[in-house]
Amino acid sequence: MGWLPDESGLEKTAANYVPLTPLSFLVRAAQVFPEQTALVYGETRRTYAEHRARISRLASALRDKGIKSGDVVATILPNVPPQAEAHFGVPAMGGVLNTINTRLDVDTVAYIFDHAGAKMVLVDSQFLELAEEAADRMEGTAPIFIECSDDQAGRKASGRHMTYEELMESGDPEAAWDWPEDEWESISINYTSGTTGRPKGVVYHHRGAYLNAMGQVISWRMVLNPVYLTIVPLFHCNGWCHTWMMPLVGGTLVCCRDIQAKPIFDAIADEGVTHFGGAPIVLNTLINAKDGDKREFDHIVEVFTAGAPPPPSTLKRIEPMGFNVTHVYGLTETYGPATECTWKPMWDGLEGDERAAVKARQGVAMPFIENNTVMDPETMSEVAHDGETQGEIMYRGNGVMKGYYKDPEKTAESFEGGYYHTGDLAVLEKDGYIRIADRAKDIIISGGENISSVEVEGVIAGHEAVSLCAVVAKPDEKWGEVPCAFVELKDGCEATEEELIAFARKTLAGFKTPKKVVFKELPKTSTGKIQKFELRQEAKTL
Amino acid sequence: MGWLPDESGLEKTAANYVPLTPLSFLVRAAQVFPEQTALVYGETRRTYAEHRARISRLASALRDKGIKSGDVVATILPNVPPQAEAHFGVPAMGGVLNTINTRLDVDTVAYIFDHAGAKMVLVDSQFLELAEEAADRMEGTAPIFIECSDDQAGRKASGRHMTYEELMESGDPEAAWDWPEDEWESISINYTSGTTGRPKGVVYHHRGAYLNAMGQVISWRMVLNPVYLTIVPLFHCNGWCHTWMMPLVGGTLVCCRDIQAKPIFDAIADEGVTHFGGAPIVLNTLINAKDGDKREFDHIVEVFTAGAPPPPSTLKRIEPMGFNVTHVYGLTETYGPATECTWKPMWDGLEGDERAAVKARQGVAMPFIENNTVMDPETMSEVAHDGETQGEIMYRGNGVMKGYYKDPEKTAESFEGGYYHTGDLAVLEKDGYIRIADRAKDIIISGGENISSVEVEGVIAGHEAVSLCAVVAKPDEKWGEVPCAFVELKDGCEATEEELIAFARKTLAGFKTPKKVVFKELPKTSTGKIQKFELRQEAKTL
Repeated sequence: MGWLPDESGLEKTAANYVPLTPLSFLVRAAQVFPEQTALVYGETRRTYAEHRARISRLASALRDKGIKSGDVVATILPNVPPQAEAHFGVPAMGGVLNTINTRLDVDTVAYIFDHAGAKMVLVDSQFLELAEEAADRMEGTAPIFIECSDDQAGRKASGRHMTYEELMESGDPEAAWDWPEDEWESISINYTSGTTGRPKGVVYHHRGAYLNAMGQVISWRMVLNPVYLTIVPLFHCNGWCHTWMMPLVGGTLVCCRDIQAKPIFDAIADEGVTHFGGAPIVLNTLINAKDGDKREFDHIVEVFTAGAPPPPSTLKRIEPMGFNVTHVYGLTETYGPATECTWKPMWDGLEGDERAAVKARQGVAMPFIENNTVMDPETMSEVAHDGETQGEIMYRGNGVMKGYYKDPEKTAESFEGGYYHTGDLAVLEKDGYIRIADRAKDIIISGGENISSVEVEGVIAGHEAVSLCAVVAKPDEKWGEVPCAFVELKDGCEATEEELIAFARKTLAGFKTPKKVVFKELPKTSTGKIQKFELRQEAKTL
Repeated sequence: MGWLPDESGLEKTAANYVPLTPLSFLVRAAQVFPEQTALVYGETRRTYAEHRARISRLASALRDKGIKSGDVVATILPNVPPQAEAHFGVPAMGGVLNTINTRLDVDTVAYIFDHAGAKMVLVDSQFLELAEEAADRMEGTAPIFIECSDDQAGRKASGRHMTYEELMESGDPEAAWDWPEDEWESISINYTSGTTGRPKGVVYHHRGAYLNAMGQVISWRMVLNPVYLTIVPLFHCNGWCHTWMMPLVGGTLVCCRDIQAKPIFDAIADEGVTHFGGAPIVLNTLINAKDGDKREFDHIVEVFTAGAPPPPSTLKRIEPMGFNVTHVYGLTETYGPATECTWKPMWDGLEGDERAAVKARQGVAMPFIENNTVMDPETMSEVAHDGETQGEIMYRGNGVMKGYYKDPEKTAESFEGGYYHTGDLAVLEKDGYIRIADRAKDIIISGGENISSVEVEGVIAGHEAVSLCAVVAKPDEKWGEVPCAFVELKDGCEATEEELIAFARKTLAGFKTPKKVVFKELPKTSTGKIQKFELRQEAKTL
């Protein structure tokens, strides 16, 4: 250990030690780039000086409404300015941000409200009924509602709650912020669907958010003053930490409420968007856009894509359109992308399928990850670099979550042996790049959203006619994958595909509802375990 | 404070907490970029895989020679591979690196050997006699000598000591490294001349080195795989932390032993150098190079310049040659550059003197600095943004030193009020950019080297004929500034300019020796204090 024989007077002081937090990025941006555009949403356009003042308003208004340090503030918002502001305003008063997926069903939202114990929720008028119904179904005390209306999108305030702009009006644009005293303090909770039905609350800390944002600048080959378009929902891993990253590089955050081809092309052409992240489905949306929706632009747009490897056909068509696509991989537990298929100069000559094969791999650790490899979970030793031996993708480093909220047991289990276990099976190729072989966890990824097949199975099994049910991924050209249910009916019972789909939809969010139901006897092992592998093979042929 | 009501299971673990250290950058580079060129020196060329193996050799060989965690290992080396390797190899076995300025005089080197308590010194054959004489003059135990010969430069081993390559040969290329358990552990000591004669040992920690390197990537608009030329001596603030930075971005470090126009142009043209740092004198060297030494190249070289603001005449001539110059400012106490005259798009149209005036300012905080401003040291409040009100440049943040070695008193003094006090007087311009008005500390900067005028005065005052002496900076076209001595002789005594210069040179390093001596009665205040301000004015007219 590098302690000098005499370390007297060399302790931490206020001058030389500041807990790492992304809040620092915004304060610096307001000093260095006060006149630079921080945020754009349609006709709304704010400089960094204005942005910082609004964050002070939000932080002080939250305090005035009784929110205290360590309290959870939830949001149910699309990618609109209040969502971007909450990423700074909530931690700036010591609060912990819980961005909830707007696509979830009432029951799950109610569960999250209860589990996280949110004291307040900022909710878009579009999702107000969802939030209100969820509050009604809660076991605990309902949060205060602040309604974010959106005139530009034709979403008028209901009149039933205080509005976000009324809240902001009550705040002080000069209010001081609360700063973390310890960089390990919590900054946000992101609920993720795991293998079990109930989502787990992944807790992030200030240190991780800071280091992840700084490291991704390097991974993304980003220089000063980028223009970033919010396609990845900010409720997914806090928008992959990109909202926190922008002030670090004096960048402009362009909010995009509806993820459609026209507004995306418009933002690229009119605002000069240089970077965005999104699932491969977004790339297909751009490729298949109507001619009237497409726009000309003369710069290269850097794209991080994740959720599934970008298919060769997509890469071949999107890259000549002016997009440079980099495949990244990560999980809610790693603050979003933490592995990157880092491009090497020696591959510059590759074309077509060869190029696509290189690009479709998951890749290597980003700078804030200490070690990211494929290991045998029994021996915790790295598998051979042979492209064949399977192991589990593991992470160790400062970009790994703090843990699961109120679940020390699952946290300890996921960190066994000093590494975060992703549950994803992969191989290491000869050059050390990770390539996923199979997902060990029973997850279906549809349009970039994770779906727990166990959750879907639980709902369908609740139908009176169903004896046994297994849900697997069925490949889908548009969504990547969609849930497909294999069902054994009870003796003497009957049910149609339409009936079961409608039944599931009553409880499940639309994206989780099976798109296909197959009635048959399920294949089982000798011990009675359903052989999902066979069903996955079958689903591919449907 | 952002602690959730229930933080059980959310503590630091091996999976999610790793002390920040630049050692991580090299391990990751060897995994991600093993085939990439890490280091070039003439005919020597090593990949990251080879570079990492040599670091393991060095770390294990140091251990075998009895060096222990917390021991200081010194170097007296130009910018050659052993110096770059020591930056990783010494901390990789828990040692603390002390790079000593090769231009110092024997007495000062002896003082540093004693003060830092170096157990070993890696010394270039060119500076071996200096080191040996210094060891002879030490009060304490002399360090083990390891001689770095350099055949390429015609510097043969003396045969009197173990050579560096013999040491490396004894090491294990697969040896494990020692990792810091606490990111606050010391990584290096850099001696700086202050206002008093004896240099102070500025201690850096692993955390600061990591954050500084990461933040400078952003400041320098650096993307993956840069080619960095070592012009700034690695013994100045560890080469402004750039050696540590290179593996983070998979960059190539090109070693440059002699800072002359021809090797610099050759490196730019042949190795494709993209970045270097250096004092304005280096830029003048390039401008004034002989035609035969100049080379054509077709890319832009990014230059960080510091030590003095780049003069307008220099900027006007160097920029059309293919160099983009950014003025940076910092001190040994801030790990080198920590303030940057960050360029803004709105200045793109500026030309000539207007452009130079904007570029010559010190600028704004780099990302790893929390706050960098100009304050009234009495009230510790920021001065007005009026370009007129003077105050002292202050820093607070993770890029501020740990403190002065074995000097808790000076450390506490320099951190008074929670900020590091630079001693430099400046104003804040309307846009918040810092511009230095005057240097409060009695420092002369000659060719990028700091000279304490008090030290020079002390030596001259030792001459038997001298009654009183004051040393100030005299502007110099080549060196920026040179020391100029004003001397009052004792009644009835005589001495010539040549005599005093020769007398000073016996003790002082060449760059510290006055280039001009003026005999006159020194101007004094009513209390007898020498009015240096007047002498500085006079020196400008000489």
